[in-house]
Amino acid sequence: MINLTKEEQKISDKILEIKSRSGTHSPSIFTVAEEVPELKIKIDACFLSNPYATDLFLEFLSKDLIETNKLRDVLEFYPSQNNIIAEFISKSINISDKNIFVGNGAIEIIQAVLHRFVKRKIVINIPTFSSYYEFATESTEVIFYQLDKEDDYKLNIDNYIKFIKETKPDSVVIINPNNPDGGYVSYNDLKYIIENLSEIENIIIDESFIHFAYEDSDFKMISASTLFNKFENLIIIKSMSKDFGIAGIRAGYAIMSESKVRQLLKNGYLWNSSGLSEYFLKLYSREDFFIRYEIVRKNYISETLKFIEELEKVKNIKVYKSKANFVLIELLDGSTAENFVSKLLIKHGIYTRIGNDKKGLKGEFIRVAARKYLDNKVIISSIRELMESD
Amino acid sequence: MINLTKEEQKISDKILEIKSRSGTHSPSIFTVAEEVPELKIKIDACFLSNPYATDLFLEFLSKDLIETNKLRDVLEFYPSQNNIIAEFISKSINISDKNIFVGNGAIEIIQAVLHRFVKRKIVINIPTFSSYYEFATESTEVIFYQLDKEDDYKLNIDNYIKFIKETKPDSVVIINPNNPDGGYVSYNDLKYIIENLSEIENIIIDESFIHFAYEDSDFKMISASTLFNKFENLIIIKSMSKDFGIAGIRAGYAIMSESKVRQLLKNGYLWNSSGLSEYFLKLYSREDFFIRYEIVRKNYISETLKFIEELEKVKNIKVYKSKANFVLIELLDGSTAENFVSKLLIKHGIYTRIGNDKKGLKGEFIRVAARKYLDNKVIISSIRELMESD
Repeated sequence: MINLTKEEQKISDKILEIKSRSGTHSPSIFTVAEEVPELKIKIDACFLSNPYATDLFLEFLSKDLIETNKLRDVLEFYPSQNNIIAEFISKSINISDKNIFVGNGAIEIIQAVLHRFVKRKIVINIPTFSSYYEFATESTEVIFYQLDKEDDYKLNIDNYIKFIKETKPDSVVIINPNNPDGGYVSYNDLKYIIENLSEIENIIIDESFIHFAYEDSDFKMISASTLFNKFENLIIIKSMSKDFGIAGIRAGYAIMSESKVRQLLKNGYLWNSSGLSEYFLKLYSREDFFIRYEIVRKNYISETLKFIEELEKVKNIKVYKSKANFVLIELLDGSTAENFVSKLLIKHGIYTRIGNDKKGLKGEFIRVAARKYLDNKVIISSIRELMESD
Repeated sequence: MINLTKEEQKISDKILEIKSRSGTHSPSIFTVAEEVPELKIKIDACFLSNPYATDLFLEFLSKDLIETNKLRDVLEFYPSQNNIIAEFISKSINISDKNIFVGNGAIEIIQAVLHRFVKRKIVINIPTFSSYYEFATESTEVIFYQLDKEDDYKLNIDNYIKFIKETKPDSVVIINPNNPDGGYVSYNDLKYIIENLSEIENIIIDESFIHFAYEDSDFKMISASTLFNKFENLIIIKSMSKDFGIAGIRAGYAIMSESKVRQLLKNGYLWNSSGLSEYFLKLYSREDFFIRYEIVRKNYISETLKFIEELEKVKNIKVYKSKANFVLIELLDGSTAENFVSKLLIKHGIYTRIGNDKKGLKGEFIRVAARKYLDNKVIISSIRELMESD
């Protein structure tokens, strides 16, 4: 069982105090580093991104903008308007630009959808990403659908459909793969759900982690967007922060009905992309970038699989089945998640996500992201030391 | 009078077509350049920014982020949350962070204020920045207060107060200096207006161009923010795109009552700054940057004054009195604004803003921004050639 020394307890209290100020989100690694200078943070396994994709983006950025002195243009002038940037995205995802709403990160889209389209009642599966219920307006009733711990937080399709039919919300949200457990609903199951919920006004599918999921051994990319033309009640939300490792740029988009896009653009969201997000979203449609990205994506998935395989061998923890780039870990030896996160950070310089504040998660949980190969090795040996030393 | 050749007319039609697709805003210089490749655009006098401030920002960015390889951190990780960034701004402007709302550009704040605080009725002075009426919700009645052309679009203080008392809106907007004419309401006059409108729920003061205004020969910086502690109904909106020449970064903030900030952050606007805007807003509070900025700001104002002085000497145009970094020009020789803008762009590579789509502006108007010293000389000689050649 993990115990903290007096000295460690002091630092742990500080970390938890900073965490409490960040609400139900983790404080950024910079905030933690600045406020607790005694920490030596080496690995951020809290942030759920593909670090190889960040390398790739920086390579293109450097070649396209820094070496050519074009960075100034991107920073000085107004970026294009929302509908123009939608045209770039349209090229990459084969969806009409009239169905694309560009967001300042997926979080802006979540806010817009919850404030403008969700009306009377929304069903949200928990545990999940907290903004989906925190951003709901006062006039929306939020109903939680508890994913079953005994069933490893897997979505029970028929039970879910039955629940929705009985609850009669106007909106539902499915994050696929789900955060924080990485649980995945297959394309066919998702299609079955959507087919059975045609009366629901807004079926929100959050695909922020979908580039890490796979259904075949070649890790072919999957998305519910191919269902969009048949089901106009779909709102597919896509963050670019995770799969492309560029959370600082704030880029995201959603696929939704033409009338919904028109409604949002009618009185807002005019210049909500930055010059750098415009550059990225153009890059996203470039073949020379995309070919390279696919290699980086598949390589990261295969490394993540090895990472999970190794983690599963560590004693005294349960690793939940995940098709995302992170895993939910439950501590089984009586250690608290707080002590685990603090010890891992103080002793090994690894920053992970505590699960205590996640509604619907009962037990001592930590979420750990896969990083680069060598970092993953350090994460595994450190967790092993923590959990197997006594 | 300006006439176009057949060839020029064709290009002009293309430009106007692109313009019409951008609504009541100008298409970005990149969109125009891409879609009309026959143009050789040399000077963007449409974009209302201080180009010397862009130089300064790039100097710091280069030293702080690019040369140190810290750019990756800014792009890869999540930026800080809204309330944390408000703390940085608080240091620069001496207003409590609890009264600061950080926006993804001022435009996001305009949208938030219009959608969340403006209720029944808003009075907007015209001509003005169109988003103030375009972003109003359907349930808000928009009342226009026409600035008097005979009085050079100057705000007539007593007449304005009388109009507001009679119209009884819950919200009013004053852009100071105003866009597109640069008309300035002095600090004391503004104070007088605010004192007399204590019954108005939201007095919105847009200070996007305030760093270019001055009341003494030393160009000392002025802002209505010093009035905030006495008048809680003020909402002061500040774009950073113009004075700092960084529209591509999307940075802005507003000063408003604690309860208004809380209301907005309660269910949204969590991560609406990018890593680069966070970097800039930290820089904004750094003394080493601010000392340099003040020099650059004052230098630009003094060059702008010379620019306006020279423009006033050009025949067949009227230059409206401006305390911003741009001037509104009226064509007096029967030339159309369309022909002026097209000819200046096609023949001289200078991009300016046509005034035809500005509600409340009657006549043939162009808005021209001051750029760097040498560019200003080119702008003046080109306009002189256009207006004095026949």
